[in-house]
Amino acid sequence: MTSRRHLLTGAAAAGLGAAAGGGLVAAARSDTPTSVAAVESLTTGTSTVPFYGPRQAGVAEDPPAHAAFVAFTLPAGTDRRALGRMMRLLSDDAGRLTQGVPALGDTDATLAPLPSRLTVTFGFGTGLYRAAGLESPVADLPKFKIDRLEQRWSGGDLLLQICADDPLTVAHTQRMLIKDARPFAAVRWVQQGFRRSPGVQAPEHTQRNVMGQLDGTANPRGAEIDPAVWNDDGSTTLVVRRMRAEIEKWDILSVADKENAVGRRLDSGAPLSGTQEHDEPDFTKLDASGLPAMPDFSHVTRARVTDPSLKLLRRPYNYDGVPNAAGQPDSGLIFASYQKDVARQFIPIQQRLADKDVLNEWITPIGSAVFAIPPGCTDAGWIGDQVLG
Amino acid sequence: MTSRRHLLTGAAAAGLGAAAGGGLVAAARSDTPTSVAAVESLTTGTSTVPFYGPRQAGVAEDPPAHAAFVAFTLPAGTDRRALGRMMRLLSDDAGRLTQGVPALGDTDATLAPLPSRLTVTFGFGTGLYRAAGLESPVADLPKFKIDRLEQRWSGGDLLLQICADDPLTVAHTQRMLIKDARPFAAVRWVQQGFRRSPGVQAPEHTQRNVMGQLDGTANPRGAEIDPAVWNDDGSTTLVVRRMRAEIEKWDILSVADKENAVGRRLDSGAPLSGTQEHDEPDFTKLDASGLPAMPDFSHVTRARVTDPSLKLLRRPYNYDGVPNAAGQPDSGLIFASYQKDVARQFIPIQQRLADKDVLNEWITPIGSAVFAIPPGCTDAGWIGDQVLG
Ligand code: HEM
Ligand code: HEM
Repeated sequence: MTSRRHLLTGAAAAGLGAAAGGGLVAAARSDTPTSVAAVESLTTGTSTVPFYGPRQAGVAEDPPAHAAFVAFTLPAGTDRRALGRMMRLLSDDAGRLTQGVPALGDTDATLAPLPSRLTVTFGFGTGLYRAAGLESPVADLPKFKIDRLEQRWSGGDLLLQICADDPLTVAHTQRMLIKDARPFAAVRWVQQGFRRSPGVQAPEHTQRNVMGQLDGTANPRGAEIDPAVWNDDGSTTLVVRRMRAEIEKWDILSVADKENAVGRRLDSGAPLSGTQEHDEPDFTKLDASGLPAMPDFSHVTRARVTDPSLKLLRRPYNYDGVPNAAGQPDSGLIFASYQKDVARQFIPIQQRLADKDVLNEWITPIGSAVFAIPPGCTDAGWIGDQVLG
Repeated sequence: MTSRRHLLTGAAAAGLGAAAGGGLVAAARSDTPTSVAAVESLTTGTSTVPFYGPRQAGVAEDPPAHAAFVAFTLPAGTDRRALGRMMRLLSDDAGRLTQGVPALGDTDATLAPLPSRLTVTFGFGTGLYRAAGLESPVADLPKFKIDRLEQRWSGGDLLLQICADDPLTVAHTQRMLIKDARPFAAVRWVQQGFRRSPGVQAPEHTQRNVMGQLDGTANPRGAEIDPAVWNDDGSTTLVVRRMRAEIEKWDILSVADKENAVGRRLDSGAPLSGTQEHDEPDFTKLDASGLPAMPDFSHVTRARVTDPSLKLLRRPYNYDGVPNAAGQPDSGLIFASYQKDVARQFIPIQQRLADKDVLNEWITPIGSAVFAIPPGCTDAGWIGDQVLG
């Protein structure tokens, strides 16, 4: 999948945003407004990300604008053979849909074109390995004292992370893949989230989340992703945490208080010890009053790791549900992070944040789930074939 | 607002999709891929639609990709003065936010830039006129026999239709305007919907809905909009109907049955009497077996009107909620139509469809609300000033 990532990174570097092959780059060079519209339409709607390869798609690529995380529960008695049949079906349809081709027996085939960078990433929970009689490469998270977990957003034996730059594509893909899975498993929860629409801001710029913060600044990028995310066999792991933002309380804070909670400026995203977004935070620097410029208990101070193999690749989506009658928002992040090893990378960071992170006053974990992300597959295989085959 | 519409129509004709001024058109002529990305980013994120003018925005423009319809209930005892205060606040903040400027006292000001064609359209329900001691220009709809209305999606004294090409912009605008309104009114319901993301398909092409149909073909466009939609004083009306799609039943139909239900081809959108999407349906034409090519009870046959002043301007958004444990989708349309006069235009069509429309088997009205859309205002005024001032 290095080649897949390179294709995308290359296109982004060329300033096209959405993944684009050479033909589209050439089209972009043409000089009438009409051909610009053609490029806009072609690059966003018809862009595809390869499905087959040694690593699954939907991890290292620039996150598309829309996502549905769909978790399933396996019924008692599910065995390895049933899992294999299910994953064959799902992989086959995901392989088609991601390339803009209808699923086998697609009941709404007109919605298959315009894949808009569709990716489908499969995650296996501990329950799936148990059903298959295999040892699970992931374990449930320990309970953190900040957790206020609700069953309806937690756990899951199988996960589908469906991402695309178009919400109709996500809806159609979700519908078709749920149909494939439902003879084998019940839908446990679905979380739908969004980032900026394609073309709203340049892809090389960090996006803001529903709390108004630039979110993603310190994420590994390019060559930094490999040591943090990919195991040699092409596997990785995913933690999904539904983080409710306590927007009403957040909104009454001053800008300075908001900045101290995170350790970065709200406008530029610069660390409080610096001036530019990508300045390295300097935890030794003191401010005018002799206190650390980066507060000890700020989110960034607590979350920071420097060893490249200990970083998380955060790939969060915003959610914005329906406010209650009093007008209080139901908003937050579907926090999703990819890392080689949950125990070595995710848990220590989440533990430090749970122990002390001023931001905890304004964010509450209300859902949590952990999945192993098996390697990718060839077009003759299916996701999980090395594990379940 | 003719000028506003012309600006938008002009840009679309020039192939830019999102509203764009001359400067951006010029930029689009530049010939490196990088400047294409700049255009993409500028046109989608920083595009604005004027708020002030004789007619409200959010009606005649090409619908942006995301919408939130927010309905409020006024508490007993609300009077005209309170309504005036509320509408002053709301209009003032909508005037700013639509131009990418933070609301007064915006608690998340970093989310105000990148308005992405944001519009905020205000609708007044019968209850608002009653509270103001005024006669209402709209009346509640009669009950149709197909209705399975749920309170939680129905009615409302005040409506905000918030549309933008970016979902984060919609979320922020919704949050700020609910804050303005909530000393005066309770949130009654919120319906969030989507269309294709910007750039996924060319704006001049009809979009598909969650049922996979090309939806919008027969809509008035350009100069046809005026006689259907705008009263001389700049007012119009809006009907919002939440239409659940019975996707599971729809999906087991053959393509031919789906086409007969609508009266148009699924792939091309052509009427069954013709070959091209924009061919006029010919209701006299017979097929090989001597039956009308356009079935008598198809949706298009029943919904068709030819008098330009009797047409509806349909502006629907898709919704896709969370499926149940069995994997059955919660999907459909937030059907929204603008017309001069509900009684003369909307009700006869809905009545004919309720009486007989084969499509009724696969669509169910589960919510319904009617609003008067007062004229626009100048930047010295506020929406509703001519009514409540
Ligand atoms: C609603 C929940 C959360 C919000 C709003 C949030 C927000 C932020 C922001 C604004 C930054 C600074 C900019 C950046 O580098 O992206 C940041 C950094 C970071 N966050 Fe969070 N975060 C949340 C939850 C979490 C969780 C659950 C974890 C992991 C357990 C986490 C781990 C990190 C890490 C590792 C960094 C980078 C620190 C560094 O090396 O500079 N965050 N977060
Ligand atoms: C889920 C609900 C609905 C679906 C899926 C749906 C779908 C469609 C489709 C596919 C067309 C043909 C293409 C086009 O001209 O747009 C159409 C046309 C039309 N629909 Fe609907 N529709 C729905 C509800 C309604 C409702 C509630 C009304 C009004 C009461 C309505 C009024 C019309 C009209 C006036 C036309 C144009 C007919 C013509 O002049 O050719 N529709 N609809």
